[in-house]
Amino acid sequence: MKYFLLVTAGMILAMNTVNAQTDAPIAIAIHGGAGTIKKSSMGAERESQIRSAMEAAVRAGHQVLDSGGTALDAVSTAVRMLEDIPHFNAGKGAVFNAEGKNELDASIMDGATRNAGAVAAVHTVKNPIELARLVMDQSPHVMLIGSGAEEFGRQHDIEFVEPSYFYTDYRWEQLQKAKAEQATAEAGTERWYSTVGAVALDRDGNLAAATSTGGTTNKRWGRVGDSPIIGAGTYADNRSCAVSATGTGEFFIRAVIAYDICARVFYQGIGLETAARQVIMDELPQMGGDGGVISMDKSGNIAMVFNTAGMYRASIDTSGNMAVAIYGDEESASN
Amino acid sequence: MKYFLLVTAGMILAMNTVNAQTDAPIAIAIHGGAGTIKKSSMGAERESQIRSAMEAAVRAGHQVLDSGGTALDAVSTAVRMLEDIPHFNAGKGAVFNAEGKNELDASIMDGATRNAGAVAAVHTVKNPIELARLVMDQSPHVMLIGSGAEEFGRQHDIEFVEPSYFYTDYRWEQLQKAKAEQATAEAGTERWYSTVGAVALDRDGNLAAATSTGGTTNKRWGRVGDSPIIGAGTYADNRSCAVSATGTGEFFIRAVIAYDICARVFYQGIGLETAARQVIMDELPQMGGDGGVISMDKSGNIAMVFNTAGMYRASIDTSGNMAVAIYGDEESASN
Repeated sequence: MKYFLLVTAGMILAMNTVNAQTDAPIAIAIHGGAGTIKKSSMGAERESQIRSAMEAAVRAGHQVLDSGGTALDAVSTAVRMLEDIPHFNAGKGAVFNAEGKNELDASIMDGATRNAGAVAAVHTVKNPIELARLVMDQSPHVMLIGSGAEEFGRQHDIEFVEPSYFYTDYRWEQLQKAKAEQATAEAGTERWYSTVGAVALDRDGNLAAATSTGGTTNKRWGRVGDSPIIGAGTYADNRSCAVSATGTGEFFIRAVIAYDICARVFYQGIGLETAARQVIMDELPQMGGDGGVISMDKSGNIAMVFNTAGMYRASIDTSGNMAVAIYGDEESASN
Repeated sequence: MKYFLLVTAGMILAMNTVNAQTDAPIAIAIHGGAGTIKKSSMGAERESQIRSAMEAAVRAGHQVLDSGGTALDAVSTAVRMLEDIPHFNAGKGAVFNAEGKNELDASIMDGATRNAGAVAAVHTVKNPIELARLVMDQSPHVMLIGSGAEEFGRQHDIEFVEPSYFYTDYRWEQLQKAKAEQATAEAGTERWYSTVGAVALDRDGNLAAATSTGGTTNKRWGRVGDSPIIGAGTYADNRSCAVSATGTGEFFIRAVIAYDICARVFYQGIGLETAARQVIMDELPQMGGDGGVISMDKSGNIAMVFNTAGMYRASIDTSGNMAVAIYGDEESASN
C-alpha cells in the first residue's frame, strides 16, 4: 500500500510537470525596421502586403513554439521568411552598396547557452540567418566574414544564389537616388533603418534573438553596422532578456544597445519595458542615434520601443494575442 | 575697486583650475596577450626583449599623457609601438591564417564621447590601430572590414606595406606546427591568445582603450574574434571604465566582456577590480573561456586580471610607479 501511494504521488508529479510544460508561456515578436514611415507615401497596396508578410512570419514563428519547437527555431523561421520578402531590407530585398552590390549581415543568439553566430559581408547566401545559425551550431567560431564565411557555408547545406537574385527595381532606384543626392549635397536621405529581426520564448523557458540586414543603401568601404555584432544588434540571455535592434547602427554599436538593455534588467532589477525605454528614448537620442528594438524577458513580456515615427512590428504574446503595427500611434503589444 | 576684485577672483579661479589640471591623475596600462606563458620555454633573451618592449611602450604612452596629450593619443601611441614589435601578435608580428596570410583586426574607443573605430581583416596596413583611429575620426562609421577598409585608408595618410612585411620565421613555424597538429588530431595547441592593447586616463579625466591583433594561427573562414568588436574586446566610457581584452575571442564576444565590466561598475556601483574579477575569474570560466583584461576606472585605478598562467602587462599608475610583469605570480599594479 505504501508503494502504491508512492507510485501514485510520482505519477501525479509527472502529470503536473507535463501540464506545467503545456502551460508554460510562449511568445514571439518580430520587426522589419524602424524609421520615417509615412502613411501618405506608403500606398495602400504596399502597406497591405507588408502587414500580411509580417503576420505570416510571426504566425510561422509562433507555430514552431506552439508545437514544442525551440525559440532558436522560431526566430530562425520568422527571420528567414522576412528575408524572402522583397519589401524588407534583408535577404531578397537587400539594399545595394555604393558598388551596386548586395552585402548581407546576420546574427543569432541562444539565451540558454549564450551561444551565438554571426556573418557579415556575404553576397550569395540566400538566407544569411541560416548561415549565422550554422556558424553557431557547426563551427567553434562566433563571427565569420566575407568570402571566408561563404566558403564555410559551402561545406554545409546552405542555399546559394546568383547575386542577381537580390536585384529589385525598388532598391536599385533607391541607390540611384542616394548617389544623385550625394552628388549634389551630402544631405541624408529619408531616415530609414531597415533590418529584420525576431525574439522568442519557448516552452522550456529559453529565449533567442535573431537579426538580418542588407545594411544601408550606398554604403562604402565594407561598412558593418550593428546587425551582426553580438551585444549591439542582437543579444539573448535567459537570465535577463532577448533583443533585436534596428537603427543607426554606429550608435547601436557604441552604446552596445542590445546587451545594455539586458544588463539594466539583470543588474538593476528593473522591468524590460523600463530598461528598453531608458536605452531607446533617453540614452540613444542623447548620443544622436535613432531606431528601435523588439525585446522579450524570461516571462514572455514584450517591449517594442522606437524613437522614430514608425517601426514595422508584430507579435503574439503569452495569451496568444496577435498584434501587427507600423506607425507610432498604432496599438501594438507594448504600447 | 569692485571690478578689480572681480577680476582677481576670476584669476584665482583660473589658477586653481590650472593647478587642478596639473594635479589631475594620469595613468596607463598595456598588455601583450594572455595564456600559457612558461618561464621554462621562454628563454632569457626573448623574455628580456619582451620586457624592454613593454617598458618602452608604456613609457611612451605615459609621456603623451604627461605632456598634456589625450588618452586617445596615449593608447594609440602605445599600441602602435607594440604593433611594430615582432614578439607580439599584432601588426609586424601577426600570426598567419590557414591560407598563410596575415589578417589584422583593431579597435579604439574614446571614453569622453563614446566614439569608436574598428577594422577587421585588413592585410596591408602597417598599423591597424591607426586605421581604426582614422575610421573613428574621419568617417561616419564605426567598423570597416576587408578591402573596403583598406580603400578607405588609401584615401587618407595611412602607411601601407607589402604583405611580406608581416612575415616572421617564428609565426610561419607556428602555422606549420598548427597545420601538422591539425592533420594528426584536432587537439589544440598551447592555449595562447596574443593580442595587444592599452587603456589610459588623461589629465582632462578622459578614458580611452585600444586593442590590436593578428587573430589566431591557422584561422579559417574569415573568422573575426573580439578585438575589433566594440563591447567585447574594447570599451571606454568616462562614466565607468576603459577595458582592453585578450583571450578566447568567441567567449569574449558572447559575454560582451569589455562592456560587461563597465556595466557592473556603472549599474552595480562596485569597484573596478571587483567587477573585472567577477567577469574574468567567474563568468568567463563558467562559459568555458579564458584570457584576461587590462582595465582602468575614471580615477585611474588599474585592474589587470587574467585566469591564465600569465599575461604580458605593464603599467604606470597615478603615483608614477611603473610595473612590468609576465607571469601570474609576479607583482603588477593590480595584484
